[in-house]
Amino acid sequence: MPHIPLPDVPGILGPMQFRPETAKPLNDLVEVLLRGDHTLSRGERELIAAHVSHRNRTRFCEMSHSTFAALQLDGGWDVVDSVIADPSTAKVSPKMRALLHVASKVQGSGLDVTADDIAAARSEGATDVEIHDTVLIAAAFCMYNRYVDGLATFQPTERADYAETGQMIVEHGYAAASPPIP
Amino acid sequence: MPHIPLPDVPGILGPMQFRPETAKPLNDLVEVLLRGDHTLSRGERELIAAHVSHRNRTRFCEMSHSTFAALQLDGGWDVVDSVIADPSTAKVSPKMRALLHVASKVQGSGLDVTADDIAAARSEGATDVEIHDTVLIAAAFCMYNRYVDGLATFQPTERADYAETGQMIVEHGYAAASPPIP
Repeated sequence: MPHIPLPDVPGILGPMQFRPETAKPLNDLVEVLLRGDHTLSRGERELIAAHVSHRNRTRFCEMSHSTFAALQLDGGWDVVDSVIADPSTAKVSPKMRALLHVASKVQGSGLDVTADDIAAARSEGATDVEIHDTVLIAAAFCMYNRYVDGLATFQPTERADYAETGQMIVEHGYAAASPPIP
Repeated sequence: MPHIPLPDVPGILGPMQFRPETAKPLNDLVEVLLRGDHTLSRGERELIAAHVSHRNRTRFCEMSHSTFAALQLDGGWDVVDSVIADPSTAKVSPKMRALLHVASKVQGSGLDVTADDIAAARSEGATDVEIHDTVLIAAAFCMYNRYVDGLATFQPTERADYAETGQMIVEHGYAAASPPIP
């Protein structure tokens, strides 16, 4: 039962419909971060979002972004499951493993990220923009996760519950999902 | 020394100039949350931002939003200092003390917010929108704080270092501070 009366839709969709004025910048941000032009693929960036959401134990965000990653990655769920299980041995590039490690640090606190963490990512070929965006994606999901859990939203538990939204986001993106501002 | 080469400006301004595409939604979000039409004053909402930033030990955000709060609150720094020292005894309304307590919970994890925390805020007169926005402001500063610290930005330590930006933000707002997107 949510802490405030929300529309009967899962996860972040409830508070976004409740407060469209804040939904717009929230969707604009994730659209740039996870779907904008980039040297990391959309699937790779969704993996960072899913990984951080898993660490924060926010089921709705973990399941949503795992689904979006699986739909957009060669290897699909097999790759996603390997990241959720252990990023350090996951079936992704060494660069992605190093960036996922940076994201893990950010999830705890920005102060935990060390020069060595960054140097390790750089030595695997990570660029400044890739490092910047990894830090900001991880930070942003520390927000989305707290938003979804802090209002005690309804969070479905089955993969099948996320399939329809997955197709919609992959086809149309996040910005298109913003409710109209009255 | 920042983890990536950034323009020589303090705190979040460096990564925002480095990546204007993400700066825009980040500024749009904080503009709605901290300065949009609301039943909580701008000063009260800045207190929530300063309090969460203090708990995350992000000096730049704590000093910035403490300054913005002090400039916009009757009581100025005296009120701000009382919130930073201990929200439960701070020189603010009982409703604000209850909302600051909710923000403290969100700072740890959204999962820590209980029905009793929300009931306590409601019993002091907090509305659904005030509860929603308190949760989202606290969640958002868990993002901004991690962004600023996770890239090891330069963070000035003296109040005087924040006075000029304070005047600018109070007069013109956050959205006006977004660098142009190339």
